[in-house]
Amino acid sequence: MQFLTEQQLGNVLQRNFVLGEVPGVVWIPRSGPAPLVLIGHPGGLSTMHPRLLARAQHLANDGFASAALELPGCGERPRIAAADEARAELRRAVRAGEPVGEDVLERLVLPLVDQAAPEWQHAVDVLLQLPGITGPVGYAGGLIALGVRLAVVEPRIEAAVLFAGSYVPRGMFAEAKTVAIPLQVLLQWDDEGNDRQLALDLFDALGSGEKSLHANMGGHTGVPPFAVDDGARFFARHLQAG
Amino acid sequence: MQFLTEQQLGNVLQRNFVLGEVPGVVWIPRSGPAPLVLIGHPGGLSTMHPRLLARAQHLANDGFASAALELPGCGERPRIAAADEARAELRRAVRAGEPVGEDVLERLVLPLVDQAAPEWQHAVDVLLQLPGITGPVGYAGGLIALGVRLAVVEPRIEAAVLFAGSYVPRGMFAEAKTVAIPLQVLLQWDDEGNDRQLALDLFDALGSGEKSLHANMGGHTGVPPFAVDDGARFFARHLQAG
Repeated sequence: MQFLTEQQLGNVLQRNFVLGEVPGVVWIPRSGPAPLVLIGHPGGLSTMHPRLLARAQHLANDGFASAALELPGCGERPRIAAADEARAELRRAVRAGEPVGEDVLERLVLPLVDQAAPEWQHAVDVLLQLPGITGPVGYAGGLIALGVRLAVVEPRIEAAVLFAGSYVPRGMFAEAKTVAIPLQVLLQWDDEGNDRQLALDLFDALGSGEKSLHANMGGHTGVPPFAVDDGARFFARHLQAG
Repeated sequence: MQFLTEQQLGNVLQRNFVLGEVPGVVWIPRSGPAPLVLIGHPGGLSTMHPRLLARAQHLANDGFASAALELPGCGERPRIAAADEARAELRRAVRAGEPVGEDVLERLVLPLVDQAAPEWQHAVDVLLQLPGITGPVGYAGGLIALGVRLAVVEPRIEAAVLFAGSYVPRGMFAEAKTVAIPLQVLLQWDDEGNDRQLALDLFDALGSGEKSLHANMGGHTGVPPFAVDDGARFFARHLQAG
């Protein structure tokens, strides 16, 4: 892990890094050693930065360090032609108000998750060595398919808040049934870029004994502050206990 | 309002009363003047008493007085033959795993709500005069159709936590669209005596600008403690602000 920049931004020390060839950011709270929350996002760290920083600062306020890695084929990473093509097809379908084909989702999401998951696991190895960061680890974010995969393969992740704001191929539902960690699923009921029934079906499929669905009014970026607080309390219950 | 008994039970003073011919209970917290939460229930105050008392004590702990009235045709009130018949048909259908007919729901729920709502409104008139109780008023409980009706007709009710644990005839969905107060809807995802799709459709129909669905695992009586706490925080936000 090679650190590029370091900046105190409000209540967090933001450190930009490269891990192998993968850019990433870690936010460490002033308040001392803290459990780590991985922040899932749709790709494009620079574009997403204002929103990610706001979430990192909110998490720091509640006593959590956080980190995000750039996704394969996104931001400054080399493009992946097949993914770009599938993403364009998905956008076309959503814009036209048509159902998104299962094959499009599989071509977009499965290779992304297959490549990203081990990268994020490797990042956890390294991040847990940093001063100011301790286990356990949580996952919070909108790339719900990556959250599902990490919940299954990475035992250090003990709880996840999943934002039902992205597509999960139904081919991953069998994998979702094997998730066993506590989950809180946030659903924006009127999310224009989401498929509500798919989100409800995925919630039903998830195997965890403790799972809660919190559905709120508003569009994709309109998650109300009290729902964000619900997520913080959920992590406090599962990552800070004892 | 004629008081029959008065008993200090933990953190609440429980006062049993009769209002006209309607039995009721009010629970007043030790801690002094508090907003009032009406506790909805399926009828039968004596049978429900342990659960109602537990909820009243939990509410008192969070700074709320609470009260419940006996429903028409339930408990010690004169039976209503048509309601008993419809209730028996509903139970038969649920036990047989058959869909509950819309006509059964209408015969059971509509007359019950038509009669109960003015009784509960009258109780609010009187309860708000008692020492230890102030406005505003909330509604919390499992008789979701009564909660919908009261939310529409009773302006002193400023927020409601609805337990999606009872049936609402689709004929009430137009009325549900006119509800405007903040709502939190609790849904037990695996509630054996409930219709999940009906609950989701009703949540979708409710007109409130702020409405949240909190779905949790488990059966009818398995609401997890953290979901109860969510309800308390919701009431604190809406009934204790300022």
